[in-house]
Amino acid sequence: MPAISAGPEIERLIQLLARLPGLGPRSARRAALFLIKKRELLMAPLAAALQTAIEKISVCRICGNIDTQNPCTLCTDPRRDDSTIVVVADVADLWALERAHAINARYHVLGGILSPLDGVGPDDLAIDALMKRMSEPAIKEVILALSATVEGQSTAHYITDLLHGTKVKVTRLAHGVPVGGELDYLDEGTLAAAIRSRTPF
Amino acid sequence: MPAISAGPEIERLIQLLARLPGLGPRSARRAALFLIKKRELLMAPLAAALQTAIEKISVCRICGNIDTQNPCTLCTDPRRDDSTIVVVADVADLWALERAHAINARYHVLGGILSPLDGVGPDDLAIDALMKRMSEPAIKEVILALSATVEGQSTAHYITDLLHGTKVKVTRLAHGVPVGGELDYLDEGTLAAAIRSRTPF
Repeated sequence: MPAISAGPEIERLIQLLARLPGLGPRSARRAALFLIKKRELLMAPLAAALQTAIEKISVCRICGNIDTQNPCTLCTDPRRDDSTIVVVADVADLWALERAHAINARYHVLGGILSPLDGVGPDDLAIDALMKRMSEPAIKEVILALSATVEGQSTAHYITDLLHGTKVKVTRLAHGVPVGGELDYLDEGTLAAAIRSRTPF
Repeated sequence: MPAISAGPEIERLIQLLARLPGLGPRSARRAALFLIKKRELLMAPLAAALQTAIEKISVCRICGNIDTQNPCTLCTDPRRDDSTIVVVADVADLWALERAHAINARYHVLGGILSPLDGVGPDDLAIDALMKRMSEPAIKEVILALSATVEGQSTAHYITDLLHGTKVKVTRLAHGVPVGGELDYLDEGTLAAAIRSRTPF
């Protein structure tokens, strides 16, 4: 990014903003100008919110979610079903399931998926911590809510193997046509899975 | 945006990020997670950069540029040509011209363009300040670097009328084919302007 002759402080702000996902150099400049124009209404609150987040947010020692309390809101909520743990790769996936109000159970965040090519092995994920949680007598089911990619499915297989022989039931997300999805645009694998898992109408 | 059950501090951070241009609710969530993951490397520096910007950045009292010094770097640079003032609508336009190394002159930021429909009249822009600068004897030319839109061009006409009768030469940006542009994709107005202003080869 060439210099903008507006002081190193502004350039540094732009460079940091440009590292956010979804913002490139050009949109980071626009965002910086927008922030500077809205100093009182947006820039100061954002600086404060970031500072608060730095001070207060931590990773839940039980499930790996991020929250301002530890254990997190979801782990301490007494209205959640203790018998089911939903295993997700990332906090973003946990948030997505929560937004969908998909299930009212506990979670376990792996912190990634197995990916030998990227050097991510079982020790890099919170799999040990998951196994330790299996000693809780309440747990009856583990739902593997992992992406339907090769890495996601091998991670699912790895965890299923570890749980083999325990009394815990292991399930995974259904494959099928996305709600609102048009058949035309779906790949053959999804269509074949949707036919295989067809349900009575 | 539905609740994410991760504490009001995280939700507030996401809401503030979502107000940046270029970020929607979904990408703001991704950005917030990214920031939380890179707490030391990105979140803390960004909070500090915002705080520094809040404390140090001000609007240049001469030209309306933003900078950490006042008058700004461009107004105080002794190597710039005092005889020419480039009038731009916005600081973003000033930055664009500076990135292009288009001209080594002084600037004047109007802070917008005339737009009766949006209630933006001459008093809302830094036109008075521009006229006051015209009393500097060094000034020989005013370049109106305004967008080639109806509003941009009426703003240009308005300023030209005000400068009528002074010795200052008023110019505007050339119309023509953008460098790298394909004729096919250009509108008729641009093509006609490019033919009218053709130059010897």
